Amino acid sequence: MKITILINCPDQAGIISSVTGFVHAKGGNIIYIDQHVDKQADVFFMRLESEFDESTISFENFKSQFNKEISAPFNMDCKMHLSGIKPKMALFISKYNHCLYDLLSRFNSGELDVEIPFILSNHKDLQNISEQFQIPFFHIPVTKENKLEAENKQLALLKEYEIDFIVLARYMQIIAPRTIDQYPNKIINIHHSFLPAFAGAKPYHAAFARGVKIIGATSHYVTEELDAGPIIEQDVVTVTHAHTIKDFIAKGQDLEKIVLSRAVKLHIQRKTMVYNNKTVIFS
Amino acid sequence: MKITILINCPDQAGIISSVTGFVHAKGGNIIYIDQHVDKQADVFFMRLESEFDESTISFENFKSQFNKEISAPFNMDCKMHLSGIKPKMALFISKYNHCLYDLLSRFNSGELDVEIPFILSNHKDLQNISEQFQIPFFHIPVTKENKLEAENKQLALLKEYEIDFIVLARYMQIIAPRTIDQYPNKIINIHHSFLPAFAGAKPYHAAFARGVKIIGATSHYVTEELDAGPIIEQDVVTVTHAHTIKDFIAKGQDLEKIVLSRAVKLHIQRKTMVYNNKTVIFS
Amino acid sequence: MKITILINCPDQAGIISSVTGFVHAKGGNIIYIDQHVDKQADVFFMRLESEFDESTISFENFKSQFNKEISAPFNMDCKMHLSGIKPKMALFISKYNHCLYDLLSRFNSGELDVEIPFILSNHKDLQNISEQFQIPFFHIPVTKENKLEAENKQLALLKEYEIDFIVLARYMQIIAPRTIDQYPNKIINIHHSFLPAFAGAKPYHAAFARGVKIIGATSHYVTEELDAGPIIEQDVVTVTHAHTIKDFIAKGQDLEKIVLSRAVKLHIQRKTMVYNNKTVIFS
Amino acid sequence: MKITILINCPDQAGIISSVTGFVHAKGGNIIYIDQHVDKQADVFFMRLESEFDESTISFENFKSQFNKEISAPFNMDCKMHLSGIKPKMALFISKYNHCLYDLLSRFNSGELDVEIPFILSNHKDLQNISEQFQIPFFHIPVTKENKLEAENKQLALLKEYEIDFIVLARYMQIIAPRTIDQYPNKIINIHHSFLPAFAGAKPYHAAFARGVKIIGATSHYVTEELDAGPIIEQDVVTVTHAHTIKDFIAKGQDLEKIVLSRAVKLHIQRKTMVYNNKTVIFS
Repeated sequence: MKITILINCPDQAGIISSVTGFVHAKGGNIIYIDQHVDKQADVFFMRLESEFDESTISFENFKSQFNKEISAPFNMDCKMHLSGIKPKMALFISKYNHCLYDLLSRFNSGELDVEIPFILSNHKDLQNISEQFQIPFFHIPVTKENKLEAENKQLALLKEYEIDFIVLARYMQIIAPRTIDQYPNKIINIHHSFLPAFAGAKPYHAAFARGVKIIGATSHYVTEELDAGPIIEQDVVTVTHAHTIKDFIAKGQDLEKIVLSRAVKLHIQRKTMVYNNKTVIFS
Repeated sequence: MKITILINCPDQAGIISSVTGFVHAKGGNIIYIDQHVDKQADVFFMRLESEFDESTISFENFKSQFNKEISAPFNMDCKMHLSGIKPKMALFISKYNHCLYDLLSRFNSGELDVEIPFILSNHKDLQNISEQFQIPFFHIPVTKENKLEAENKQLALLKEYEIDFIVLARYMQIIAPRTIDQYPNKIINIHHSFLPAFAGAKPYHAAFARGVKIIGATSHYVTEELDAGPIIEQDVVTVTHAHTIKDFIAKGQDLEKIVLSRAVKLHIQRKTMVYNNKTVIFS
Repeated sequence: MKITILINCPDQAGIISSVTGFVHAKGGNIIYIDQHVDKQADVFFMRLESEFDESTISFENFKSQFNKEISAPFNMDCKMHLSGIKPKMALFISKYNHCLYDLLSRFNSGELDVEIPFILSNHKDLQNISEQFQIPFFHIPVTKENKLEAENKQLALLKEYEIDFIVLARYMQIIAPRTIDQYPNKIINIHHSFLPAFAGAKPYHAAFARGVKIIGATSHYVTEELDAGPIIEQDVVTVTHAHTIKDFIAKGQDLEKIVLSRAVKLHIQRKTMVYNNKTVIFS
Repeated sequence: MKITILINCPDQAGIISSVTGFVHAKGGNIIYIDQHVDKQADVFFMRLESEFDESTISFENFKSQFNKEISAPFNMDCKMHLSGIKPKMALFISKYNHCLYDLLSRFNSGELDVEIPFILSNHKDLQNISEQFQIPFFHIPVTKENKLEAENKQLALLKEYEIDFIVLARYMQIIAPRTIDQYPNKIINIHHSFLPAFAGAKPYHAAFARGVKIIGATSHYVTEELDAGPIIEQDVVTVTHAHTIKDFIAKGQDLEKIVLSRAVKLHIQRKTMVYNNKTVIFS
């Protein structure tokens, strides 16, 4: 069995040797270790993968012993994942299909190690794509009037299907604070600009008006402040005066889908940690 | 002789055939033509290079006939440049040497077709570099108290040396509005961020705090609004959580010098036009 | 009506003014012009778009007059396209789905201005995708023994469906010379390396073995020499020692689909010209 | 005191916990650890930085104990570096100044933690730059006839000045095998193409002839086979049909200097390891 451990704690001497010594003593073979120290915040981060013979120790035993002997003394925030357990990902969409197609075609090829219990949209336009890929589709329209009711329906679905994390694949609605509270650093958005430039609505129009020579896309975890959450991945592409807003959108959509898919993969592979509204990406 | 013509005017039918027909009739051979229409603003832009036998026509005659027969009827804003005339470039610097070294080493290699009558700084730190390259150096300190006097000295130097355009190679001072008025779209600045993100002071610190995954540099013409002028050139480089602010600065400086030098070359080659606070770059 | 004209001819004085003058005289408004001179080969290239009032002139008349008055005297190789006529594109595939999904999702969004009469494969694996998108699928297995027969079937289909150009979306077979002869610069391939590095089979394995820090993808027109045709588009992505061959493949596939789609779009928009085994891309 | 340890050895269980445990037991605080397993070659790599109180242990003692207790049992190839000791770098140049200026301006700014005992060239063209920066310059012409004698002179200088590593900053001569033997993975070259494409002479001309859309530069350690040594760093820039060979060279030179400087910095910071003609870069 393979166990992935993600740790952050106040920086102090002896963490690495204690953790690796513990894993070794329990019969584990460390196959990956990476660490980072945020010197400004004085916080230590580590990601460690190790393989165990299942006859030696159980995941639950390892976990409880690690917590008692290592995690508690070092005051760690520690997460452990057993390989082979697929997280459940919900897709929220609206009318654009490029990110949806990109994620679903990767899912179909076995590139994304997840389950996709459902696709949810405030519009019916892309229902046929969910049918193409035989994934349940829920249509929950959102208007000023029914907002609370729509949120309740969403939350009920998330609960019913035991969703682990949400991907906003160009879902053009604000996510409710109580949904964010239930999914802290577990809602991944794609914003069609190079954040923090052009946060908010119509970033391609704003980029065109400003006359930038490079446009971008940013995938980030959703927090209450709009387009201000921890950035997971960004990429850019050059543009010129000769490109129209329509060209910006076409070029940008190629970025959006690739950037979002990369971020989703990093999240699925448990390679992301969040601290102080920033990410540590162990890639 | 080679003449470069830069035109912008209200978009209308027949501009291209009129201009090319005129050049052809005067014995010119068109060796480069590029055009752009800004459909939002309904403005036509063109850059044209043509070669003439000097025995056929003089530059002054060509210019006055073109203005009468073509430029006036089409209501053009038109600039003509005769090849072989080197523009005079002043370099304004402070304490960072990377952009200065980059520009001067290119100048030394013959890559930049300009004269550099002087280097001006508010500090003495880099005077030795101007001596290395045997270019006159003027030290004009700028303080709250002597601001007006310093501006006067700068303007006097710019006038005395008949400077055509100014390059701010990490000059850490605000340029006075009256200097900007005298050099409209003729002062080139390098800002160490991916504008419009992180305008103003300490952009690397701001980028670090925001946790971006890509940092950038932007070269733009200086206007009265800080870091908001027409963008000439931008470039970016990836960063990770493992990079410190010091790393951001080191990686960024590599961008700054390349981006600034590219912008300066475009300006020298008369490949830039400005309209509505945006550039058209005929590269 | 909008006419797009693509020209190449020996470089000589007066081409631009003659062409633009002719178009203007026929009542056309030039909305785009770009030109290029290959000084080594002494060849002139031009792409021109112009709009005409259909009551003034017919496409056929314009074409024949242009050929007589302009094209013949200047010894031009000239192609004209009337807007609104969609070219017919055949997709050849094998077992990889990423390029196929990318092209079909763009086609579905209206991004590609083509018809897709059929998808052809030497395997049945991706037949379900053609069904998802309701496009006819032909399965033509290729073995050493049936090669000639398979080619005949392909050629018959291409003829029957009046195919204008072919896209090899990771079709893992060599195209027969007589097919190439019938489709000169009309078969677009995607090769999964940064050509000319790693031509031939298994480029990701070769790149891994060489220890490169950047991998690429190249879209090119197919010629008889393998992976040596005119390059339309290339792009790259960074890799590190930590990436396995599997990682190279995953990262590379993101490049492949974007690079191929860009090349296909350029071809559809008639923005590509070929000369001396190189392309001129009027983008 | 800070010690940097670089290790490679056959992959086996327990390496990380043994090494980190040893460092911890000797009173060291690990401030950086990164590891890599080449699964094809079954080789383990590690880079570790740790800080020690000098009163606790001496560098020599730590080294000898580590070698006995850890390095020998695990069959390690191990290198240790004490911080604060600047390596001695020789610069070999010919006629191009861009890489030289870039390295020397960084050196002047304190960005490169080295000594530069001398600059050596087969031409006198850039002697003035060495004078600008007050670094000794040796002119050793290389002809067919004097080759052996020139090599002897070079080797004598390298020995006399106790040079640790050599940077070929566009030195246009083949390095003698016996020099390479004395400096294994310690001679850094910049090649002006995206290797393995366009190895050998005139890569920009070859790239132009092939019609590529992206050109590159590669910094690598020199081995006996020309342009085939372990790659340290690569970067690329886009080009179009409109760029001439002269443009390729100008754009490429910007790449060359940045790529070479990055490689030199990685080498100085002991972040590079070589195995099987490939590099592991702990950046």
